Amino acid sequence: MSKVLGIDIGGTSIKVGMFSTDGKLEAVTKIPTGEIVSEAAFAVVTEGLKALLADNGVTPDEVIAIGLDVPGPVDDDGKVGMLANIELDPEGLQAAIKRTFANANLAFVNDANAAALGELWQGSAKGANSFVLIAIGTGVGGGVVANGKLVSGAFGAGGEIGHITVNRDETANCGCGRKGCLEQYASATGIVRAYKKACAAKGTEPVELSGPTDTLSVFNAHRAGDEAAVEAIAQMCDYLGYAMAQISAVTDPQMYLIGGGVGGGFNLYAEDLRNAFRKYCLAPSVATRILPASLGNDAAMYGCAYQALLERG
Amino acid sequence: MSKVLGIDIGGTSIKVGMFSTDGKLEAVTKIPTGEIVSEAAFAVVTEGLKALLADNGVTPDEVIAIGLDVPGPVDDDGKVGMLANIELDPEGLQAAIKRTFANANLAFVNDANAAALGELWQGSAKGANSFVLIAIGTGVGGGVVANGKLVSGAFGAGGEIGHITVNRDETANCGCGRKGCLEQYASATGIVRAYKKACAAKGTEPVELSGPTDTLSVFNAHRAGDEAAVEAIAQMCDYLGYAMAQISAVTDPQMYLIGGGVGGGFNLYAEDLRNAFRKYCLAPSVATRILPASLGNDAAMYGCAYQALLERG
Repeated sequence: MSKVLGIDIGGTSIKVGMFSTDGKLEAVTKIPTGEIVSEAAFAVVTEGLKALLADNGVTPDEVIAIGLDVPGPVDDDGKVGMLANIELDPEGLQAAIKRTFANANLAFVNDANAAALGELWQGSAKGANSFVLIAIGTGVGGGVVANGKLVSGAFGAGGEIGHITVNRDETANCGCGRKGCLEQYASATGIVRAYKKACAAKGTEPVELSGPTDTLSVFNAHRAGDEAAVEAIAQMCDYLGYAMAQISAVTDPQMYLIGGGVGGGFNLYAEDLRNAFRKYCLAPSVATRILPASLGNDAAMYGCAYQALLERG
Repeated sequence: MSKVLGIDIGGTSIKVGMFSTDGKLEAVTKIPTGEIVSEAAFAVVTEGLKALLADNGVTPDEVIAIGLDVPGPVDDDGKVGMLANIELDPEGLQAAIKRTFANANLAFVNDANAAALGELWQGSAKGANSFVLIAIGTGVGGGVVANGKLVSGAFGAGGEIGHITVNRDETANCGCGRKGCLEQYASATGIVRAYKKACAAKGTEPVELSGPTDTLSVFNAHRAGDEAAVEAIAQMCDYLGYAMAQISAVTDPQMYLIGGGVGGGFNLYAEDLRNAFRKYCLAPSVATRILPASLGNDAAMYGCAYQALLERG
């Protein structure tokens, strides 16, 4: 039976899903990795893939498509651009996988774009003609689908909605070198930063935070009535709703899906976010739906598998 | 021989182009119109179409597709939304045309979207996979093409880039009811307004202007070294380049085409505009090309014909 693999490449491990060609996730494994830049490291990956298959009675020849998602730009031709946050030699890894899986089509996909494709294949956007996935984690990523297809962009910057400018008066730099990007306010880092700032302004003590991206504690503080937390999350919604209104003036999607780690708290801020979007959007777009993504952290794994399958034709 | 008609609907007249199926413009006519809301008015249009054909030895049965562009939203299903600036009953006109041209597929297209499709069919964007047309006239319209296809939007607001917010501090209202839209600064009206404001600030006398959209005179003043004109156009480029950078963070097109009446002055401000875009865009997108559209005022006529032909299949 033909199988498809989705490989979600993270900083310290990769997560691999084995799918049927109709999108059923049949098995998952995690392979611990360090830098993926040497033949030895490539072999750890290919051996891990073979072990997953063997455990499930599948041979490498049965794998017809393998998708890999990377935390960086991938252009319309599938070429991987500069990877800032991970030590990975994409061409070397691709060659090693190709040697092991002779029948498989290989595809690289940007991680947020992959998450959008995953939601399109088997998640909240199944069958949708147009939508935008907003993946909120340490940063803010996005995946834009129009006319049923992913918009990767001519230079791999399609769906880089974390870098829509939402505050032209900002003086602090974003990671991209520009100022006032959505990511500075609506990412996990941005929410925690805003919460601390609101506490300082109010002279109140912040709740205990496990680190600079601990939005879970901020959300819990919000539930407990902590005014600084309420303010921080209202600000996040205002900036995010504003950015979504700008996106709607470009591609006018039928829905937005909120995913990533912060997407898990969706119910807490859904009302604020919907109100902010409607405040800023053009009249015809007020009917746009805003929903939580449904595949959680598996979305990108689904999506890169799907892309590799689609490209195979 | 099969023919395609493109009907560009304006406030006081409609312009009709007769095309071969491979996109050659073979004849053009103008039909004066008033409000197009009665059977009598519909008949004026259909008689005008028949006269154009008769003059060129073509029968109504040879017409296989007819596109109509309208100055308002048209959604992904081809349904026309509210038309603010024109008295037109789209369904009535469609029915009248259908009775006369039994073999023709009819399609409505938003005017700026039509212009983008025209450039894709026979203009500067021929064969392009992704681009955005920015049509600068009395207002600022846009047409977004991604993966070779027009992005009309789920609610007809795709490519409404004149309503990207570029100045959150604006206190004056845009025609859409919101504040700080690109259209308030980069339209012909916006450029003339900025020029007058710059003259007032400098205490200089503006050149003679024929009306509130006379950018030609402002451009000529710029050429003659009028500092207020230089400032007004620099401001237009700054806001437009900023808005384009936001678009690139969403669909990341391979090129921008500047069209509409103000597009005619492209060479005057091309350098300023390219610099502004590069100042604001994400690093991967700096290679995006910024070019003039090539079909001028005929672009929408080409584009709606093309859309009707495409939909016929």
